[in-house]
Amino acid sequence: MVVAKNANVATGREGRANAVELTQRVSAKLHFAPHDILVASTGIIGSPYPMDKVRIFVDGLEPDTADCSFPAIARAIMTTDTVPKHVVVRVGGATIVGVAKGVGMIEPNMATMLAFFFTDAALAQPLLHRIFRKVIDATFNCLSIDSDTSTSTAVIFANGLAGAVPEDEFEDALHGLALALVKKIARDGEGATKLLEVGVKGARDSAQARRVAKAIVNSPLVKTAIHGADPNWGRVAMAIGKCEQDIDIEPERVRIGFGDLQVYPDQLAARDLQRLSDMLRAENVRIAVDLGCGGGEATVWGCDLSAEYVSINADYST
Amino acid sequence: MVVAKNANVATGREGRANAVELTQRVSAKLHFAPHDILVASTGIIGSPYPMDKVRIFVDGLEPDTADCSFPAIARAIMTTDTVPKHVVVRVGGATIVGVAKGVGMIEPNMATMLAFFFTDAALAQPLLHRIFRKVIDATFNCLSIDSDTSTSTAVIFANGLAGAVPEDEFEDALHGLALALVKKIARDGEGATKLLEVGVKGARDSAQARRVAKAIVNSPLVKTAIHGADPNWGRVAMAIGKCEQDIDIEPERVRIGFGDLQVYPDQLAARDLQRLSDMLRAENVRIAVDLGCGGGEATVWGCDLSAEYVSINADYST
Repeated sequence: MVVAKNANVATGREGRANAVELTQRVSAKLHFAPHDILVASTGIIGSPYPMDKVRIFVDGLEPDTADCSFPAIARAIMTTDTVPKHVVVRVGGATIVGVAKGVGMIEPNMATMLAFFFTDAALAQPLLHRIFRKVIDATFNCLSIDSDTSTSTAVIFANGLAGAVPEDEFEDALHGLALALVKKIARDGEGATKLLEVGVKGARDSAQARRVAKAIVNSPLVKTAIHGADPNWGRVAMAIGKCEQDIDIEPERVRIGFGDLQVYPDQLAARDLQRLSDMLRAENVRIAVDLGCGGGEATVWGCDLSAEYVSINADYST
Repeated sequence: MVVAKNANVATGREGRANAVELTQRVSAKLHFAPHDILVASTGIIGSPYPMDKVRIFVDGLEPDTADCSFPAIARAIMTTDTVPKHVVVRVGGATIVGVAKGVGMIEPNMATMLAFFFTDAALAQPLLHRIFRKVIDATFNCLSIDSDTSTSTAVIFANGLAGAVPEDEFEDALHGLALALVKKIARDGEGATKLLEVGVKGARDSAQARRVAKAIVNSPLVKTAIHGADPNWGRVAMAIGKCEQDIDIEPERVRIGFGDLQVYPDQLAARDLQRLSDMLRAENVRIAVDLGCGGGEATVWGCDLSAEYVSINADYST
């Protein structure tokens, strides 16, 4: 059960009672046991559900005739999203479907973001759990729209009807699916005009690589430079320097590039300037950093910061 | 010696040689020993000084006729500042003067911010050092425009000509002066329309209070809400929740207010709504949080996030 446009957060006892009542009503209507219903809620903080409207809606549900397709689900759970987010992949004889919503207040752990995965592949629950955790950590937990956070949900449902599939093939397929959703979310980030991918390698370990990549993707000055298609690598260097605890990063060993063009420390050849400019004007921009220290790597995804982000969030009424 | 509009950062050996040459030229011109000259440089990262212009300028200096007043200094060190920042206080028979610049890429430790203090009070160097560190930590290190950082400088010069002053009076005066400069910087933050003050009390200790206050003052969603004069306390609650390591914060004990009006957990009385609205439309906005846990306190300063911040920084050309 997904409630969109109201997070039911910081609503106290009234909020808890409303969630319980809602679960019971849905349970009665759809003939599921209440404990088989997961509740996910997203939207404004601190306002109780408008229960009058909610009761009328639930009591009027017509499950037999409603559009229960995945595209319809993706559309129904949108809040400030501008496009529904829905991806399908095949793996052997099975299918995995993912739907997600979220465009702002997004940082790990996957804040104000809902993602639901459905598959008919047969996998033992502990194995599915392990694969799912691993995939989410490398995809949704590497996404940041604005460094802000809130509650979030990611769930996978598997009914086993299509039988077993090879574990590694399933993991690859699920990873590809989750990454496609993550890119859709970043690309639809509030006010975003570009998808920003930041890859860091040569770190002491993957945790350091991720910290540095997150500092870059979350920096307002990097995000505005990308918005302005400005190859301002100084701001990327600044963001690396923000990682105060990472005192083992040596400035002399750091390499910074946009796409496959290195811009620091060696100056870009004049003949590559036009290519750099075109690259920064594209809808997908990649920043590549090599810390020149070890084998740790990480990739994170985010978006540019535009004036539109400000107006969306300055006008979002409480 | 202050060089404005060029940080001389990430310029390698050429940058170092340029700084040395500049120090020598200024030293020869003004008859100071080179080791008595402090160099502070602020502006674009990664571009060498335009030495042709700089040499002509330094060689043409006329120290006897130049305007060496503090207001002229405050004006000369501006980069994207829209107003010069200059404050004077008296303490006993002595005076303290402060000048500063900086409007963006500002987080501790005092990034891309230059602050110079001058006094004729006589204080032993170790004592002055201790007082200065303490004051800077509680003022400039509690300032954030955009969470982004770079190199910075804060220095105090004392010639002792006015004789001794009581230590505590000097510290109070210097604190007041530094705070006045911090507020001028926040108020002049890139694109800022409001000064935002965040006070956190009831924390386990002052370090926790400062972490929480910083999470609030740096949150893009809090900053845009303040820009839109929206009493969206849910975003303040979200920012407190961002402090992942502070697992001892109990949501049930947290109190959130704007100015002297508490907005969470108790709903605001209807008669106070207009006062809240007026408060949020003012040029100075204060968010007050009580974590209800201990005696730790901190206050930090910042500003709202406007579309103007984005355009200033998207168009800042490399």
